[in-house]
Amino acid sequence: MSVKSVLRDVLRKLTPTESERQDMQLQVKKIIDVLTTGLKKSFSDFEVQVEGSIAKDTWLSNNREIDIFILLPLETPRKLLKDVINAVKQVISVPWVERYAEHPFLEFSINEYKVEVVPCFKVRNLKKLKSAVDRTPFHTQYVKTHLTPQLRDDVRLLKGFTNGIGVYGAELKVGGFSGYLCELLILAYNGFLNLLQEAASWKHGHIIDIKTHYKNAYELRKLFDSPLIVVDPVDNSRNVASALTLKNLSIFIAAAGEFFRTPHLHFFFPPTTPMLSISEVLSKMNSRGTHFLFLAFPAPSVVSDILWGQLYKSVSALRTLLESNDFQVFRTDMWTDEQTLVVMIFELEHKTIPYVTKRSGPPVTLPQHTTNFTSKYIENENTLSGPYIDEDGKWIVETKRSFTKAEDLLAKNLFSNDLEEIGLGKYVAMEMPSAKIYMDTEIESLLNENQVFLDFFIEYLIKTPKWLMKSS
Amino acid sequence: MSVKSVLRDVLRKLTPTESERQDMQLQVKKIIDVLTTGLKKSFSDFEVQVEGSIAKDTWLSNNREIDIFILLPLETPRKLLKDVINAVKQVISVPWVERYAEHPFLEFSINEYKVEVVPCFKVRNLKKLKSAVDRTPFHTQYVKTHLTPQLRDDVRLLKGFTNGIGVYGAELKVGGFSGYLCELLILAYNGFLNLLQEAASWKHGHIIDIKTHYKNAYELRKLFDSPLIVVDPVDNSRNVASALTLKNLSIFIAAAGEFFRTPHLHFFFPPTTPMLSISEVLSKMNSRGTHFLFLAFPAPSVVSDILWGQLYKSVSALRTLLESNDFQVFRTDMWTDEQTLVVMIFELEHKTIPYVTKRSGPPVTLPQHTTNFTSKYIENENTLSGPYIDEDGKWIVETKRSFTKAEDLLAKNLFSNDLEEIGLGKYVAMEMPSAKIYMDTEIESLLNENQVFLDFFIEYLIKTPKWLMKSS
Repeated sequence: MSVKSVLRDVLRKLTPTESERQDMQLQVKKIIDVLTTGLKKSFSDFEVQVEGSIAKDTWLSNNREIDIFILLPLETPRKLLKDVINAVKQVISVPWVERYAEHPFLEFSINEYKVEVVPCFKVRNLKKLKSAVDRTPFHTQYVKTHLTPQLRDDVRLLKGFTNGIGVYGAELKVGGFSGYLCELLILAYNGFLNLLQEAASWKHGHIIDIKTHYKNAYELRKLFDSPLIVVDPVDNSRNVASALTLKNLSIFIAAAGEFFRTPHLHFFFPPTTPMLSISEVLSKMNSRGTHFLFLAFPAPSVVSDILWGQLYKSVSALRTLLESNDFQVFRTDMWTDEQTLVVMIFELEHKTIPYVTKRSGPPVTLPQHTTNFTSKYIENENTLSGPYIDEDGKWIVETKRSFTKAEDLLAKNLFSNDLEEIGLGKYVAMEMPSAKIYMDTEIESLLNENQVFLDFFIEYLIKTPKWLMKSS
Repeated sequence: MSVKSVLRDVLRKLTPTESERQDMQLQVKKIIDVLTTGLKKSFSDFEVQVEGSIAKDTWLSNNREIDIFILLPLETPRKLLKDVINAVKQVISVPWVERYAEHPFLEFSINEYKVEVVPCFKVRNLKKLKSAVDRTPFHTQYVKTHLTPQLRDDVRLLKGFTNGIGVYGAELKVGGFSGYLCELLILAYNGFLNLLQEAASWKHGHIIDIKTHYKNAYELRKLFDSPLIVVDPVDNSRNVASALTLKNLSIFIAAAGEFFRTPHLHFFFPPTTPMLSISEVLSKMNSRGTHFLFLAFPAPSVVSDILWGQLYKSVSALRTLLESNDFQVFRTDMWTDEQTLVVMIFELEHKTIPYVTKRSGPPVTLPQHTTNFTSKYIENENTLSGPYIDEDGKWIVETKRSFTKAEDLLAKNLFSNDLEEIGLGKYVAMEMPSAKIYMDTEIESLLNENQVFLDFFIEYLIKTPKWLMKSS
């Protein structure tokens, strides 16, 4: 396929239809009306308005997310936010979930639309921000002013592309491109194809400063230590791409290059994961010759960003625990449905490590240390060989290890020690009493029970990005 | 025991008895007479004299080695050495072995004495040395002139001490202290105890310059890059301690310190290796949890220094081969009786390593390299997972290994490849067709057959220096 025909097909799928638009507008108007009428009973000074991709007309077909902001006067006391939220709860006649990030917001569903209601302060000057969400109306305004109708299609292409290659979304789970970042990139490069062509030769640390807020790259890099730096045109103290990880930026760069070599719908609409039978999966595992330690436990019930933050931190802490006890970790990964289950994967180089281990002592040229070391280890029941002097003139002793199996090390630490000291997140630590370790093919039962985890694990084994695969 | 009583006991054992001395003098005189008379038939201008520890009266009781030098005029053509050697062969009426280091010399035994006859040139000025052995008469002269009778005992103590802790001898096999080095150290520190007390706090790179040939340490270290620098008082271009390895210097430093803490005869006369049954040895091996690869082959028949040089080089090359193929080597060692058999020991962390291995590719920011890498590994039969992009923005592919067992890797390389390319010594390489690999307890047969190797292997497992062990 040619680039042109791919993009034409993609746009046809991504652009909302006329009836979709009408339905969306109706919904938004209804919600605004209901909230405005309801809130007027208790509050005099406020505005209800739609934000996000709906307001900017950069939303994708089949997207059913509506962001409603309630703007309050700057002088409103912070504690009044709670009252606003409570008033909204009274007004809507559907079940809701109250969440709290930096401040409270409300989520509910109406007619298959997921609605988020966020109270914020109406600030004049972004230097005097009262809350992080106060910036959003400025973003909406900036994009509405600068984005031509033609470029809205290009934003849809970019959102579709980043989504298709798995790097859309600034939330911690993804660490990718936010919608606003996509809009700014399209503005900065005046179109999707132009952006993609340039991005294919970006370096790590690339800088985009649309309004040339900064004189030089040195100044900017001192301020923002990120793989990609995109200065917010409405607030030059902020890097819009700060959530983007080096890995995801790299995927974007590589996929951009690959798209021109092999234009394909897969970049936007990845094929489903190949269906492998459980026995095929187990045989693929075995054929690697490594050893899998799976740590499964109930998902802590905290908001997504907190959950993923703690999981990343915990996986990394456990990897460090394993490695500092000489268990070499080949690869590690982690899965959760965010509701019921977390599974961490530690793929180990070896099933067991030797009982004997070397401990380095002082050089012989430190006589006092020498005496301490030799008298400690000579005729010690844990000493297997030595102490002796090595080629470098250093004392060495070969002693017994406490753990020769990774599962024993983890079991000992997870089910008895101070888990936060090891570096586990607080909420993850709380689930450890219910954790279960599966070694290698013991995971069969879980793969059988959980199709989503099975798909994830098949992807783990294949590991090639879908956009890179040839065929179909 | 007190230091004093230990040294008294040691000296009693190390000092030749009066009857030993008389017998030795008789032997030396006989040999000199026979050689002088015999050589006079063919040569007019030469001197026959005894060198080494006999000449300097620093030899140890039970030592039966006699060094005889034949000094030829400086203008003698080098090829005449051969004629001198041949004339000696005619004169003596016993079997001999001709050896060749820098130039030829002759070895034979008479009445339990091992005699070495070395032709050399009689130089006036050591700057105009014709052969390395020409220096020896100068060394003899220097020591005879400076060493008081009292200090001769101290030399004996030092030789006994270095011998007891396993660091006596400048030959490649040992890499330790030569007799001349012992003599100079006693001269420099005016006695054994004083030397030992000082040596206990030596640093690596210690400098001894008896005649203060050099102004500063910087100048000296630029010239001699050795763990211990002892400037030869008769030839300031030479470091007498150049053969001493860092490990052996370190053993000397540590043992010196330990001697004052726990004076004991063991430093001079180490106890025999503990007797372990074969099954005890095998169980000690097993309990380490490591895996032993033994490579056994016939000892190449070359002189000791060549043999050991090639063996050290070869063990190190094979270790590198193993490690560069991801086999982690825990410890390595090597044994030979110099006549029939060599056994190299590679103690490995793991019996097998995973089939899967990671290969790093280019960063995504090099688009041309990216394409080469991905097109090479995608849909390649050796690819197990990927290519994929890692956290650092680099391409990675997981491929199949050629060797998951160290013995397969060695077998493939030793029995088919260009062995000198791997880094094996030439003479070692020639024996590889007859090499045999034993894994772990397969070594039982060899341990059963060869008591000397068994003792060596018990020492390998225990590894503690005997002088460090408590108890008598």
